[in-house]
Amino acid sequence: MSYMQQQLDEEKVFKDPVHRYIHVRDRIIWDLIGTKEFQRLRRVRQLGTTFLTFHGAEHSRFSHSLGVYEIVRRIVEIFQNRPHWDDEERILCLTAALLHDVGHGPYSHSFEKVFRLDHEEFTRAIILGDTEVNEVLKRVDDDFPQKVSEVIAKTYANKLVVSMISSQIDADRMDYLLRDAYFTGVSYGQFDIERILRVMRPQEDQVVIKQSGMHAVEDYIMSRYQMYWQVYFHPVTRSAEVILSKILHRAKSLFEEGYTFKLEPVHFISLFKEKVELDDYIKLDEGIIQYYFQAWQEEDDPILSDLCERFLNRRLFKYMEFNPNVQMEDWHQLYTYFIKAGIDPDYYLIVDSSSDLPYDFYRPGEEEERLPIHLLTKKGEYRELSRESTVVEAISGKKRTDHKLYYPADLIEQIDDQDLKRKISEILDI
Amino acid sequence: MSYMQQQLDEEKVFKDPVHRYIHVRDRIIWDLIGTKEFQRLRRVRQLGTTFLTFHGAEHSRFSHSLGVYEIVRRIVEIFQNRPHWDDEERILCLTAALLHDVGHGPYSHSFEKVFRLDHEEFTRAIILGDTEVNEVLKRVDDDFPQKVSEVIAKTYANKLVVSMISSQIDADRMDYLLRDAYFTGVSYGQFDIERILRVMRPQEDQVVIKQSGMHAVEDYIMSRYQMYWQVYFHPVTRSAEVILSKILHRAKSLFEEGYTFKLEPVHFISLFKEKVELDDYIKLDEGIIQYYFQAWQEEDDPILSDLCERFLNRRLFKYMEFNPNVQMEDWHQLYTYFIKAGIDPDYYLIVDSSSDLPYDFYRPGEEEERLPIHLLTKKGEYRELSRESTVVEAISGKKRTDHKLYYPADLIEQIDDQDLKRKISEILDI
Amino acid sequence: MSYMQQQLDEEKVFKDPVHRYIHVRDRIIWDLIGTKEFQRLRRVRQLGTTFLTFHGAEHSRFSHSLGVYEIVRRIVEIFQNRPHWDDEERILCLTAALLHDVGHGPYSHSFEKVFRLDHEEFTRAIILGDTEVNEVLKRVDDDFPQKVSEVIAKTYANKLVVSMISSQIDADRMDYLLRDAYFTGVSYGQFDIERILRVMRPQEDQVVIKQSGMHAVEDYIMSRYQMYWQVYFHPVTRSAEVILSKILHRAKSLFEEGYTFKLEPVHFISLFKEKVELDDYIKLDEGIIQYYFQAWQEEDDPILSDLCERFLNRRLFKYMEFNPNVQMEDWHQLYTYFIKAGIDPDYYLIVDSSSDLPYDFYRPGEEEERLPIHLLTKKGEYRELSRESTVVEAISGKKRTDHKLYYPADLIEQIDDQDLKRKISEILDI
Amino acid sequence: MSYMQQQLDEEKVFKDPVHRYIHVRDRIIWDLIGTKEFQRLRRVRQLGTTFLTFHGAEHSRFSHSLGVYEIVRRIVEIFQNRPHWDDEERILCLTAALLHDVGHGPYSHSFEKVFRLDHEEFTRAIILGDTEVNEVLKRVDDDFPQKVSEVIAKTYANKLVVSMISSQIDADRMDYLLRDAYFTGVSYGQFDIERILRVMRPQEDQVVIKQSGMHAVEDYIMSRYQMYWQVYFHPVTRSAEVILSKILHRAKSLFEEGYTFKLEPVHFISLFKEKVELDDYIKLDEGIIQYYFQAWQEEDDPILSDLCERFLNRRLFKYMEFNPNVQMEDWHQLYTYFIKAGIDPDYYLIVDSSSDLPYDFYRPGEEEERLPIHLLTKKGEYRELSRESTVVEAISGKKRTDHKLYYPADLIEQIDDQDLKRKISEILDI
Repeated sequence: MSYMQQQLDEEKVFKDPVHRYIHVRDRIIWDLIGTKEFQRLRRVRQLGTTFLTFHGAEHSRFSHSLGVYEIVRRIVEIFQNRPHWDDEERILCLTAALLHDVGHGPYSHSFEKVFRLDHEEFTRAIILGDTEVNEVLKRVDDDFPQKVSEVIAKTYANKLVVSMISSQIDADRMDYLLRDAYFTGVSYGQFDIERILRVMRPQEDQVVIKQSGMHAVEDYIMSRYQMYWQVYFHPVTRSAEVILSKILHRAKSLFEEGYTFKLEPVHFISLFKEKVELDDYIKLDEGIIQYYFQAWQEEDDPILSDLCERFLNRRLFKYMEFNPNVQMEDWHQLYTYFIKAGIDPDYYLIVDSSSDLPYDFYRPGEEEERLPIHLLTKKGEYRELSRESTVVEAISGKKRTDHKLYYPADLIEQIDDQDLKRKISEILDI
Repeated sequence: MSYMQQQLDEEKVFKDPVHRYIHVRDRIIWDLIGTKEFQRLRRVRQLGTTFLTFHGAEHSRFSHSLGVYEIVRRIVEIFQNRPHWDDEERILCLTAALLHDVGHGPYSHSFEKVFRLDHEEFTRAIILGDTEVNEVLKRVDDDFPQKVSEVIAKTYANKLVVSMISSQIDADRMDYLLRDAYFTGVSYGQFDIERILRVMRPQEDQVVIKQSGMHAVEDYIMSRYQMYWQVYFHPVTRSAEVILSKILHRAKSLFEEGYTFKLEPVHFISLFKEKVELDDYIKLDEGIIQYYFQAWQEEDDPILSDLCERFLNRRLFKYMEFNPNVQMEDWHQLYTYFIKAGIDPDYYLIVDSSSDLPYDFYRPGEEEERLPIHLLTKKGEYRELSRESTVVEAISGKKRTDHKLYYPADLIEQIDDQDLKRKISEILDI
Repeated sequence: MSYMQQQLDEEKVFKDPVHRYIHVRDRIIWDLIGTKEFQRLRRVRQLGTTFLTFHGAEHSRFSHSLGVYEIVRRIVEIFQNRPHWDDEERILCLTAALLHDVGHGPYSHSFEKVFRLDHEEFTRAIILGDTEVNEVLKRVDDDFPQKVSEVIAKTYANKLVVSMISSQIDADRMDYLLRDAYFTGVSYGQFDIERILRVMRPQEDQVVIKQSGMHAVEDYIMSRYQMYWQVYFHPVTRSAEVILSKILHRAKSLFEEGYTFKLEPVHFISLFKEKVELDDYIKLDEGIIQYYFQAWQEEDDPILSDLCERFLNRRLFKYMEFNPNVQMEDWHQLYTYFIKAGIDPDYYLIVDSSSDLPYDFYRPGEEEERLPIHLLTKKGEYRELSRESTVVEAISGKKRTDHKLYYPADLIEQIDDQDLKRKISEILDI
Repeated sequence: MSYMQQQLDEEKVFKDPVHRYIHVRDRIIWDLIGTKEFQRLRRVRQLGTTFLTFHGAEHSRFSHSLGVYEIVRRIVEIFQNRPHWDDEERILCLTAALLHDVGHGPYSHSFEKVFRLDHEEFTRAIILGDTEVNEVLKRVDDDFPQKVSEVIAKTYANKLVVSMISSQIDADRMDYLLRDAYFTGVSYGQFDIERILRVMRPQEDQVVIKQSGMHAVEDYIMSRYQMYWQVYFHPVTRSAEVILSKILHRAKSLFEEGYTFKLEPVHFISLFKEKVELDDYIKLDEGIIQYYFQAWQEEDDPILSDLCERFLNRRLFKYMEFNPNVQMEDWHQLYTYFIKAGIDPDYYLIVDSSSDLPYDFYRPGEEEERLPIHLLTKKGEYRELSRESTVVEAISGKKRTDHKLYYPADLIEQIDDQDLKRKISEILDI
């Protein structure tokens, strides 16, 4: 029997608080879970700095990856024997679902921005490179790693398969909404996934939703909208993210200036040089980052040391609403005042913006577009979701952006020059 | 107004998946949560190696500590204006609840055994020593740290206060059962905490339970019993724990032999010497441990390197049931065979025993005894729980021990000498 | 001590699946629950015919009334000692919450329409008339029943009190959404009530919501929107409701024609005559209705007998979407065809319309208006919800109406005249 | 295609709060649900008088029957392609599961005792007699109703099939524990049904449980134990049950004495004569009972009228613990005092006993025995549960009985003779 068809002697299960159990019957899935690149995801938190706001959010990308796999497994079960579905693609779907995030590093958002990395590139490298994951995938056949990589990159020919992992209602989003809601403890992320799976139908080029399930999908879109503003863009989380970015910036900048670190930043050097090899990348996990941040608290550079101390001990920046259209003048003044007060504004006066597009109809050519959701009428026609649902239409295609200005209230409190302090406080309304 | 009485301008809440919200109104509690020693608990997982069995179990001692605080806060609310309750003790109870685990390090169980540490000693040191926690506590008055420390050490004069934190139905146990059940996703740890809180009554020397609440308490005892055997003593978790202990043993032993580590184990030296200062101890967190384990994978010592690789990539030992009364001969033979096969049995052939006493009536003088649970009849008499409940009586005072023999199935698979391999496999029944 | 201030010796609790426990400490509440008029609510289902669609929806108005009381109890606890809140109103709020639905009869919607009743009038009559409820209320003082009645009728002077029971985010709606979601098993009705209660603030003339809680309120509005379309207006439920109305119409019409019932409809006579006395009304409960419907299955009138059989054995009408603007011609033709086929179209060809206004800003003078939701900014200003929330704005003030045409598919199936049958089937698209 | 194999065009689902969805694909199941005998179960509450204690317990035998069907459907899915399992039995299992309670009437317990009925006999009669259910079953073949009846009567040759519906861990018990826990809102009835289903294995003569699932089964047994004492035998429920029985007794006794009822008890006459025909029986539902009880409140007989008023308005008897071994003398005295006080002790002084056997190993010949639970070791041996589990052993085979004495506190309160009243109160300790 081919490796792709091999079944375990007995089904294995993982107890999962979100999906109750995660079921594994295929040998290849079991083998992939056992690779060191996949196990590494246990050491990368799913929600980065969010645990500093919602203390329950300590779950890892490992859990999430299993969850996405489980959802796709259930979808495939529902698709069996339906038109447009080719069961030959089954293992490919499961594998791509399991591995879709395998290239994520710790605190991806900040790391990618500061060091110009791209986790998708590393996902590709792990799947195609000299890794345990690749070794397992090649047991299917030599082309299989390439296929898996294409599904994740959305370039695979069969768009139905792609849409299961990457669309506006894919297994990835469904798992992370449910999972992040569960671990943070907020109720917003709940929706009736069982119903949604039941109304999914395979079509030639995508998964569509039977029209009778429209309200369940509306509810899912609203969950997504709520989770973004309640959890993912929570200002306290963003404050931690701002500090984290500034730590990375500072360390890179010190390195470039030739500063002598007490602890040589071995794991960071290739990042600083923006020439990261896969081997180096794989070693990066949150333990390593914590180790350095702890050590850097004792560096002589006061900025690096202070920022690390803030991050580890959760002494975050405060924030105020900030409208860049009308408040740039305020910002300029604060910038000058900060310099006067001896507080480096490049590290301590930060405008951070978040924006979300909760649902989008298709606008080809835009980056990051995901396929729109199509409803399937009884007569077999497609209807794009936002044309059917008033609620979705209301939030559809509308990017909402939120700007905040972050600053260290404690340092301002300590400014000796009372006049300066007063001026700053006035602008910041503290 | 004294510091003890200071309230925050506005109540703060933490979203908590177990208790829905954790409410903080007292300034001292808010200040303690902000200390670096308390924030450090975010970097210590509540259940050590359990996440390798139940992937959801990634929650920290930080969450648990907030949970214990919240339960005590609710108990105190219920006790207000009842006989035997002195509201002067309120802040002391809340503080002791919050800090009861502040001295815990990463993977406490193994670390304490291998390096002969005692987390309770460090809890005391953090409360009484030169720390941010101590600085906050002293704002109440100079004796206050001592009082908090006594409550946690169970030596405080008012036994009612002690019993809220340390008894067989204290806030500590109630939170960890509910929390560990929630994060692992198992259903066993559920019980009706709201009902139990409602039937708690303060007495002169302890918290007792109104007899009408007996069944709720039975259910709690059974939850505890189930969680021990289903989660806490899960053989896969114990396998990871065995490997972890052996890593620590190996590193210590190499250090004592004068082995030259590629990465000098700075953070471990005081542990190896069994002279750990508070400052060193506080730096230890799971990030540090991960950092070393990752580095040690590349050490020349094959045992240290192999064990670290196993731990990080979850290549655990297999196990068989083991009865020390009748199978010691088997063990001896395996020991000899392992040596012949070139597998060091001191690191690769491990008997591990777990035992639990799900409920105990009082046997003074025994170590680790916790107060028995007393029911309060309508006539105001006490009845010890196991005399009233058949179910509790059945499991009461009976220590159940489970022995397992752990071994590396993969190494055995690779033994060249087929005869030797067969002999080993026969005994291990593989 | 005045009756209003009397407390029970010990708090009583009701186990409630939605709010966990319902707490009663005030003697008056306990006494009201014990009245026969309140106990009668156990015999009236909260959701009428919905149990024929969602089999779990068998809960009664008794449960819901306790739930509304419990929510108001919690709100009042939060309001204590806040500006604008007068604790003198506490018992009035609790009482009005408990009794707000006490005048509901079985299947109110249909009964009210067919017999031109008004449950609010009966609520008033029960509170002010010669009843056990009135007897308890008068123990406070002679004016108290009048006050309670005014709060429920929304004419009470203190609009803050009124808004707790009747506004767009009142205790009534919050309980029924959560409760109906729980018992039907749908997930749509969930929202974070604890959060909403925490951000409610008493103002001079209404309860407002702190702006920081806006997203929780959005989520509540969306829950309401979803519940309406998923549960309350479910076409199968409406089909049962259509049949029920037609039974009542038929019985009334037979009575008016002088038809001799095998079982004299004693309990219905005052309804038929549209002169219902309170005593008669109170006797009506779902048991009585079931009794008659069962008996009427054996009446000689074929329409009454058939409709009762359909209702009891859930042999409901099928439906098609119906657009009154363009399909009236179809309806006229069907009407003629039905007559030809010997099926009385007045009882078997029914257009039913449902419409909902999920959220409304204030339009004075319109019937059934409920107060809009105001957010309270940090600066103490009010903002009407739909001006702050895009999502709410999208559905705000927009009445959505859904029309369906109901018909008995089984009777059409039995038409002998094949040509007629074909014509009917074509229009109905079956 | 034979009727047994016919599938619906599209799977139908029922939303169910306990199992999320109930799935129906087989035409026969759909047709059975549509019969009037099955629909009648909507009008019989699952837990009789329990709703007077736990107000959420208003769910019907209809829901429960669907739930048992759904569990068996899942078990059969797991059994497919396993040894000992014959897929020919599939429809038989599903049908028997769905219909196992179809003969239940309202408040079965009291009705059966007072009128010497047996619901199992009516189940048989509905399956084998001239009913819609029988008509559907016969479509399979003429013997099929007989087979279904045998499975429910536990006389069917294939004991594996029987054990799915009737054993100590059958689908019936699993559904009612989960369902009753859900609707009452108590947490005790929870257990991990998904895990239990996963470890069930078909054997020649019964369903057994893989030994690795023992703890899940222990937890289920404990749930059962808790539900009995917390819910099913709750003294308030029993008080209502006592009153209900006495109403039935009184009505029967009046009938036998030739008393002239204002409302002739048409539906009761065959019950009074203990000659109940199936047609009469089927008409009985809770609506009918409520109708009579309401009417009987106005009967001249003061006992019948009072008891009905008590039942409908929840004016229940109070109770005291009663030990028949040592308190019979008390009872005799109370009996005499009651007569003196003009309170008929046969209707107002009732000893009620409940007893439960939470788990039993097999004692052939005893009535109501259910098969014991067998664990299946890895070596394929059976182990009876109570020999493996200390906890189960503790409660196994031990009948626990609880006696209580019920009396009307309000009537005693009204006794004029102060001496007599004092004597009664002393014994009753009020």
